[in-house]
Parts: sequence; structure tokens; C-alpha cells
Amino acid sequence: MKSVDIRELFQNTQAYSDREIMVEGWIRTNRGSKNFGFIELNDGTFFKNLQVVYEEDMDNFKDVAKLSIATAISVKGLLVETPDAKQPFELKAKEVCVEAPSSSDFPLQKKRHTFEYLRTIAHLRPRGNTYAAVFRVRSLVSYAIHKFFQERDFVYVHTPIITGSDAEGAGEMFHVTTIDLNNVPKTQEGTVDFSRDFFKKSTNLTVSGQLEGECYALAYKKIYTFGPTFRSENSNTARHAAEFWMIEPEIAFADLNDYMDLAEEMIKYIIDYVMQHAPEEMQFFNSFIDKGLLERLNHVASSDFKRITYSEAVELLQASDKEFEYPVEWGLDLQTEHERYLTEEVFQKPVFVTDYPKDIKAFYMRVNDDNKTVAAADLLVPGIGEIIGGSQREERMDVLIDRMKSIGLNEEEYWWYLELRKYGGVKHAGYGLGLERMIMYLTGMSNIRDVLPFPRTVGTAEF
Amino acid sequence: MKSVDIRELFQNTQAYSDREIMVEGWIRTNRGSKNFGFIELNDGTFFKNLQVVYEEDMDNFKDVAKLSIATAISVKGLLVETPDAKQPFELKAKEVCVEAPSSSDFPLQKKRHTFEYLRTIAHLRPRGNTYAAVFRVRSLVSYAIHKFFQERDFVYVHTPIITGSDAEGAGEMFHVTTIDLNNVPKTQEGTVDFSRDFFKKSTNLTVSGQLEGECYALAYKKIYTFGPTFRSENSNTARHAAEFWMIEPEIAFADLNDYMDLAEEMIKYIIDYVMQHAPEEMQFFNSFIDKGLLERLNHVASSDFKRITYSEAVELLQASDKEFEYPVEWGLDLQTEHERYLTEEVFQKPVFVTDYPKDIKAFYMRVNDDNKTVAAADLLVPGIGEIIGGSQREERMDVLIDRMKSIGLNEEEYWWYLELRKYGGVKHAGYGLGLERMIMYLTGMSNIRDVLPFPRTVGTAEF
Repeated sequence: MKSVDIRELFQNTQAYSDREIMVEGWIRTNRGSKNFGFIELNDGTFFKNLQVVYEEDMDNFKDVAKLSIATAISVKGLLVETPDAKQPFELKAKEVCVEAPSSSDFPLQKKRHTFEYLRTIAHLRPRGNTYAAVFRVRSLVSYAIHKFFQERDFVYVHTPIITGSDAEGAGEMFHVTTIDLNNVPKTQEGTVDFSRDFFKKSTNLTVSGQLEGECYALAYKKIYTFGPTFRSENSNTARHAAEFWMIEPEIAFADLNDYMDLAEEMIKYIIDYVMQHAPEEMQFFNSFIDKGLLERLNHVASSDFKRITYSEAVELLQASDKEFEYPVEWGLDLQTEHERYLTEEVFQKPVFVTDYPKDIKAFYMRVNDDNKTVAAADLLVPGIGEIIGGSQREERMDVLIDRMKSIGLNEEEYWWYLELRKYGGVKHAGYGLGLERMIMYLTGMSNIRDVLPFPRTVGTAEF
Repeated sequence: MKSVDIRELFQNTQAYSDREIMVEGWIRTNRGSKNFGFIELNDGTFFKNLQVVYEEDMDNFKDVAKLSIATAISVKGLLVETPDAKQPFELKAKEVCVEAPSSSDFPLQKKRHTFEYLRTIAHLRPRGNTYAAVFRVRSLVSYAIHKFFQERDFVYVHTPIITGSDAEGAGEMFHVTTIDLNNVPKTQEGTVDFSRDFFKKSTNLTVSGQLEGECYALAYKKIYTFGPTFRSENSNTARHAAEFWMIEPEIAFADLNDYMDLAEEMIKYIIDYVMQHAPEEMQFFNSFIDKGLLERLNHVASSDFKRITYSEAVELLQASDKEFEYPVEWGLDLQTEHERYLTEEVFQKPVFVTDYPKDIKAFYMRVNDDNKTVAAADLLVPGIGEIIGGSQREERMDVLIDRMKSIGLNEEEYWWYLELRKYGGVKHAGYGLGLERMIMYLTGMSNIRDVLPFPRTVGTAEF
């Protein structure tokens, strides 16, 4: 007899009702009494458990009653609808077989654990409700993103992870090397002899696939990347990880407004997809992690995102009664407290802030006619702050070279990026969405370590 | 007027026929004569070009006739069906605007270039037919894989890229570090002081997400990974890259046969999806890259894959008249020439070879009752050889520990992997599919450098 997924029982109950079936899964709870017992069985395919009822006429009744949490079992029995009970149906067991025992010291017992503790057992934590929900949502969000872009004929591009260049001109990168650190080969001048390294040059882990993505946008018109990115920033906060996943769409024949239209459509699509495909998980987050989550997400999915300029944002912040920790002044970057004030208190919905001062933004962003600001836009959302950053790209070769020079970037290293401007380098725009921020936003989880399966942060690379 | 994607014109011609439309794209060819001219326009959304006809009554006729390849233009005009011509329709231009000029030295001119040369312009090569086709297929294959698993309720897991452990117990990993190679801090004992490194320990780039994937399979029952993996192997061959993408599904309550059923279904699904969604590209490969490709793929999609044991394979090879370069003997690994002989000449379809000698396979593969072989299976396909490797995993704690000891793996480092066997560690199985091998198989491209957007190989990390 082939086993049935528990998801299938919940979603297609009629087909199994009053029939003899087999299920397999892990025991979440087991309450045995003298004559009968209940097992809450979870097979990982569905958030909710299947209630299994077993009675004393079963051969191994006494053994079953003693089975501990996390034991893997298979159960044959009759599926019976129970319209008057808490659960819609239960499985009346005829046969319970142990597929793999569990030691009684299984750490995820009924009692509540702190997230901090659960991080130390990252190999087991997806077997508990919170993380089972988080990581299913992570999977669904990822797929929703692929689906959104593929339905619109975007080409998915795998930009390189190991890179010889630095996409943002910022430091904070991890070195990648095969050199033996105990015995670093040196040149005659006494510096590292990279000719002895695997790539015959110094290489790093990517901080963004955007520049390579632009090459492909200027071939396919519409592309997106979806892959891991890295930052060796020494920030031990709830929002920073050394390894995280980014989605970077890039569109040609497009300007800043096209990017904002696309990003807004995408955010709404993702919310809608997750609400539809993980209603049980979303209900759980709404009840136990972040009350009001569903209302907030429904509101976002149905509202038009606000668009204001950075200059307008500064005025709003300066006019406010709110006491901010960081100063607000034209020319300074907005801090999370400012972003959250705008999106949570002023507009109570997502806000694109556009046209930032060029000195606080990256070299590849298109300089506006005022020569003071760039065609950049960040999307701010309630509860998080910035979730997307993007811009129209500088397509004018001379302006781009000036910007690169002014921050000390080596033109020669970026010869290929500059060449894009030489051959039909039409206007184009793109953005980056941090996958983990999106998941935090959708689940209400407040620490990035709790939405990454095996988080890598300063001082931590366990498992 | 909003522009229409050229894909849309080909797929939904009726809706645009005899209507005034606007398109945008890059010039592939421009043949002007005295009174009229033709532009082959490609906007990247579709493999085929749109034929644009312009005539001398257009204001800027003479300028348009001079536009060079790769110029980005927008064209307004009337879409006219041309049932008697080579192309199904053409755009009669009323207005042609230059959106971005192109220098006349654009390297992808009509003449044929070698793949070797095109690799040196990886930022431009997707604008030519071959790579435009390759990288759209790469995108579609990637999505087909997600779709296949998501439709079957598999959870997509992002296993870590930076890792403190070595999933296969093999060397050949890249170090990841923030230590300044010019000035490596040392301990009192004179070894590298990793307490000064970002993660306070030695870390590497992952060679496989399988072990972490197993943690999640034992929570969700059905999971898959899809991400980059790395090998610092010093192999300068057409089949090896230092950075490549892998898909690693893992299923619980499952044995070797379940893995083979799933893998076979997946391969057929991918072929079917790509044939349906990129017929023009596949036709191109069949005509210009690998004659017979479509016939071979259709055959594979409709045949039952063969399953034989390693011992049977060795007998077949030994009984053959074929001269092999490498010896065939029970206990030695099969080489590509052996694999290709089995799949291409003996069976002429994909073949799973199962139950390899345990000494040539990884420590985590389940030892069979004969204590000589393991429950492993490799899938061999014509033209490539091995495309998938997988196994049932060793779920018995004592056997697993023995295997780890015998190859000198540090048990303590794998405490979490061992613990999976302690808590409901039911039988489970999984496999790894190399994305690039799959793409080579589907396109007939014979060098891995030609299916990776920006390949990383020994001595090369350009762009």
C-alpha cells in the first residue's frame, strides 16, 4: 500500500473519507490512556497534524502508547470525518509500525523554547511549528518570485558568485582562495603572489550580480538573478547576515517608473501567492508571532504604493514632532527610524522614496538633470523599512566614467561594463530585493537568523 | 504608445495584425537599398527577429539606412501578415527612432565566430543566436525544475554556501576568509590564528548541500536544494568548472527505487517543458549544434530508463569487443567511456547503474546486505555519461560512524548529521543533478564554459 501525504488528506478529504489508507510521519505528541490513545502525526507536507486514534484491540497497543516524540511511524487505518470535533477528520489506526525510533531526549518537546536556543539546533528546528512555517513560506516566496518573472518572460541569469570585481565599489568582501594560509607565496616585492592562486588573481565573493545582470538585460530586455550574495560586514544585528539571497531584476528600454511599477506588482504578487498557498502558516504567524500581520499584508496588497522624492521625505521628517535619534538634513542618508516613520506613521503603506542625493548613492545610478540627485528609488515598508533598492542606470559613457573616477574605481577593470554603453546601451533600470527581508516582512519574524536555514553571521558558521 | 514585445507578436499575431504598434529592440542586420530597406530587429524576448521594412518616404530614411548593428531603436508602424514570404509578418515602419547608438566595431557581426573567441566577450555573447538560445534554455530548465518540485509539494531549501564542513570528505575546496593574506595572524604555535577570521574558524565554499538537505528532508519529507557549488579541482577540461549549479532533492520514507522513479520523472518533465517553451531554440540546436538532438530527446522522453547493477555493467563491459582506454574490473570506478558505451551502444537510452562497490562511493551511502556494495545509483545518458548521482543514505548510526572513521572524518564535526539518526531517522534517499550537464545534454553544447554565463575555471575569473 502506497502512503498518502497528509497535505493530500486535508486538501482532498472527500477522496479518502471512509477509506483505508496508509500514512507515514513523525510523532508530534502521543497521549495514551488505558484503553486508547491519540497521536498527532506530522509528515512535513502540511502544517497541521493528522490525529491518529488507536485502541487497545491493536496488537502492539502498549508499545505504541509508549512511543516518544519524533518517532517515525507508518499507520494503516480508516479515515473518518469528525464534523463535530476540533479537527475535521481522524485516522482510526488498525496498524502502527515503527519506521525509525527516537531517543526520548528529543529536544523539541511540547514546552516553548527561545529562538536563541532553537538556533543552536538548526538541524532539528524545522520540525517545530514556527520554523516549519517559516521555511515553507521561504520556499513559496522563492517560487512565487520565479513564477512572477517567468510568466512575464524574464530570463533567469546565474551571475557569478566568485568575482574579481566589486559591484558596489565598497569593501567588505570575503576573499576566495586556494592559497595555503600557513604558507602564503610571495612575489619578489614581498606581496602575495596571486599567480599561485586558483584563478591567478585575487578573487572575492560577490556582493551583487547587478553589473553582470545589466549585460544580460541588454541582450534579453528582461532578466532577473536569484542567488546568494555576501557581505563581510562586522555587524552583529538582527538584520545582517554574512550570506543572504538576493533577487535582482533588470529591464532594458525602461526608466525609474518602469522599475517601480514592476516592483510594486511583484510585491503584491508575492503576498497574494503566499496567502493562497500557505493559509495555515500565515494564520499561525498572525496568531503567535505578529498580531495584525494579515490585516497589514491585505492592506498592502490592495493599496497603491506612495511615491515621494527624497527632498519631500526630508521636508516631512523635518516638519514632524517626532524625536529622531539620527539627524535629518538634505544630503544625509535616511536611517531605519526615518524610513519606518514615513511608511508606518505618515503614509501607513509602502512608499517609494526617489531621487536621492548622488553623493550617498552608487556610481552606476543615473544622474538627474539637476546634477545633484540620481534616479534611484528605495521601497520602504511598514515594520521593516527598506526592502528594495533600485535605480535607473547611468547609460551615458562620459558621465559614468566621471562617477567611477570620483570614487576611485579602476576603469580598466570595468572595461566590459563600460562597453555596454558603447553598443546600443539603451536606458535601463533594475532593483535588488533581499529575500530574507521579504520573508521577515511576510512572517513577522524579527531576526534574520530565524529565516535563514543555517545562518552565517559574525563568528558563526555552524552546521 | 506602449511598446509590444516581439515574442507577443509571434505568439499572438492575430491581436496585432493590421494594427499600428510600437516595438523596441536592437538591430541584428540592416540592409538598405536606394528606395527601401530591411532591418532584422531583436528585442531579446524571442529567438526570431522581427522584419522591419522602411521606405524612402520616411523622413530620416537615409539615416536609418546607415544604422549599424546593435543600435537600439524604437519603431512605430503597421504589422502586416505576409503568408507567402519566409517570415509570417513584417512591420511596415512609419517612424524609426534611435534609442541608443552603437559603435560600428560591434564584435558580433554576421560572420561566424569561434566559441573560444566569444568566451572573451561574455558580456556581449548572449546577443548572438547560439548563446541567446543557450541561456534562455538555461532559464527555462531552471524554472522547469522548480515547477516540477513545487507541484509535488517539495520544499525549496537554501543550504549554506559558506561551510565549516566538507560534505564529501574530499579536499578540493576554496577557502573563504577575511584574513589579509599579506599579513596572516599566527597563534603562538605558529599556525594560522583563525580566531581573527570572520567566522572565528576555517571556512570553505560548499561542495554539496546534501547533508544539510537531509536535515530538512527529515522535517518536510520532500525537499530540494538549487544553488551554486564549488570545486577547486585543477581540471582544465570541457566538463569541469570551479563554480556550477546543483539541484539536490532529498526524500524521506524513501529508498533507492523511489529516488530513481523521481529522477526519471524529473528528467522527462524537464525535456518536455523545454521542448514546449523553446521550440525555436531547440530547432536551432538541432540544425546547427547537434544534428539528431531532437530525435534523441524525444526518444528519451518516451522510453523507460534501464536499471542495471554495477556488477551487471562490469560483465557487459568485459564481454564487449570494444577497446577501452581504462581497465574494467569489479571494484574500479566506471569511466566516461564505459558509461557512454553502456548508455549509447548497449541500451541506447538512459541507464541507472546501481549498487556500486562501497569503497569507491561516499561514506553516507547505505551499505547493502552483502556488505560490499552500497545503495547508490548513477544515471547515465547518451552523449554525456553521468548526469545524476544519488543514493539511499545510511540511516544506521553504528554503520555510519564506522564508515566515517574508516575515511578519517571527524565525528564531532558531524554531530548534527549523526543526530539525525537518533531522532526518527527514517530511511531516506536523494540525488544531485548538475545543472550545466543537464543543459549540455539538452542543447548539444559540448563545453561547460558555453552554458555558464560567466564561467569560472582554473586561471579564469573574468567579468
